[in-house]
Amino acid sequence: MQFESREEVRRAGLHKHSMAGIGYDSDGNAESIVISGGYKDDLDEGDVIIYTGQGGQSRDGGSTQVKDQVLERGNRALVNAALNQIPIRVIRGARGDKRFSPQTGYRYDGLFMVSKHWFEKSKDGPLVVRFELRKIDESFYEVALENFSETTIGETPVGSINPVRKLSNPIDRIKRDPTVVKWVKALYGNQCQICQTTLRTPTTSYSQGAHIRGLGTPHNGADTTSNMLCLCANCHILFDFGAIYIDSDTFEVHNVVEKSKSTLILNDNHKLDIEAINYHKLHYAGIQ
Amino acid sequence: MQFESREEVRRAGLHKHSMAGIGYDSDGNAESIVISGGYKDDLDEGDVIIYTGQGGQSRDGGSTQVKDQVLERGNRALVNAALNQIPIRVIRGARGDKRFSPQTGYRYDGLFMVSKHWFEKSKDGPLVVRFELRKIDESFYEVALENFSETTIGETPVGSINPVRKLSNPIDRIKRDPTVVKWVKALYGNQCQICQTTLRTPTTSYSQGAHIRGLGTPHNGADTTSNMLCLCANCHILFDFGAIYIDSDTFEVHNVVEKSKSTLILNDNHKLDIEAINYHKLHYAGIQ
Repeated sequence: MQFESREEVRRAGLHKHSMAGIGYDSDGNAESIVISGGYKDDLDEGDVIIYTGQGGQSRDGGSTQVKDQVLERGNRALVNAALNQIPIRVIRGARGDKRFSPQTGYRYDGLFMVSKHWFEKSKDGPLVVRFELRKIDESFYEVALENFSETTIGETPVGSINPVRKLSNPIDRIKRDPTVVKWVKALYGNQCQICQTTLRTPTTSYSQGAHIRGLGTPHNGADTTSNMLCLCANCHILFDFGAIYIDSDTFEVHNVVEKSKSTLILNDNHKLDIEAINYHKLHYAGIQ
Repeated sequence: MQFESREEVRRAGLHKHSMAGIGYDSDGNAESIVISGGYKDDLDEGDVIIYTGQGGQSRDGGSTQVKDQVLERGNRALVNAALNQIPIRVIRGARGDKRFSPQTGYRYDGLFMVSKHWFEKSKDGPLVVRFELRKIDESFYEVALENFSETTIGETPVGSINPVRKLSNPIDRIKRDPTVVKWVKALYGNQCQICQTTLRTPTTSYSQGAHIRGLGTPHNGADTTSNMLCLCANCHILFDFGAIYIDSDTFEVHNVVEKSKSTLILNDNHKLDIEAINYHKLHYAGIQ
């Protein structure tokens, strides 16, 4: 779908703003982004897009980063879309990467999922937020071209009695060494190092091996025991989304949302990678 | 890899027993199964195998199911392999499904993941456990042909500083209606209906929409709000693995492992499917 102007894109219901790059609904979940070469650090690889968040730039018309970007407005909405697995409509404009952008005007380029976000120091010093978006199989989300209606609890959605099965696209994954996660989980007997919960199923106890510095781009963490914690599923999510970070001096666990702290359970045989812990604090929790 | 006898398979380190169909390590995780037409209810579709658990049959040499199968020994080990995402070596014998079995002897047929398990009433009445195994991309698990060594906490596994990225196989998925899960999560403000936890990240609160009766085979549940609970990640796992079931008369939540009970949080606007709740109790928790 091809459009002459942002206004045409807006009228088609694809993106609700004429100026702002990130559109989101009243629940705070992102719906759409427009990419048109605004941020020179953005990276467009076709099916994978690295998109820079909004805010913190000087108001003199230049693009100097004068303040840290924070997880508010559009940035918050893109993180929420990642958490809630809500697909994002991507519209590319003519000023984007020549390989993937329309020659003139704007083009709707299908659905992407926000697969990761992280904080990064800009060249000017303050933090920016970066988002990785990956193209997904459109046919999983037929409603995507409509505007997701705002949630009204009064009306119960109909859903489907007999939902359809289909093959997804292959996913880019990192090979893991199963002995690493097995060792870490066994060392703690599947007890969460953060909240001390041990989930018990009818056959076993259960935990997850959580990488401190994530595998693969952009973090390129190691698949080693020193870069892994034994966590329950809940703390794993909080840790990955930067609600929790660890102080590498004291091994105190800080919850930045609840503004509480506790002490990490740490076995003497488990040597943690201090650099990975500091990396996590900066790039996941956004704390310099 | 082709073998004349079970004994040869055993000596090659592929399956540790000469008789039993399910091999598992001292941690209680399954490593390998042999399929050779023993259970007539087994179903072999090549890349997908439905495998019946062990136990509860009459000792007269017949195959009458006289007692419920339970999650012990090999059955427990296959469930644990599902929870811990440990791949299973599959060896097929000549007496299996002709389309996928060797003409004589035994053949190593690669790695499968236990993707689901459930309880089912046998024709004779008592419950049996059934497992769905799906073929996986062998190259993700190079260690699989070695015996996974038993976990010894003294030796730290080396892991990998620079793990390799690759594409996984496409996964069979069920299309979901995103408005269904959005509605359920909004109704409860992301509070877990079971444990009352609300996970809070820096940008939002978080929960998961858990289908009571699962989508797709074998359960073929509906993608509707009446078949969905708003759960935290931890309770979602406990619910899916049958540690928790709901009494459809009282809406009490029973934890069969902790032997405790509590009351489900239930909004008046949320009508639950009673049949789905009873289905879950029977097929996930194995309680008739």
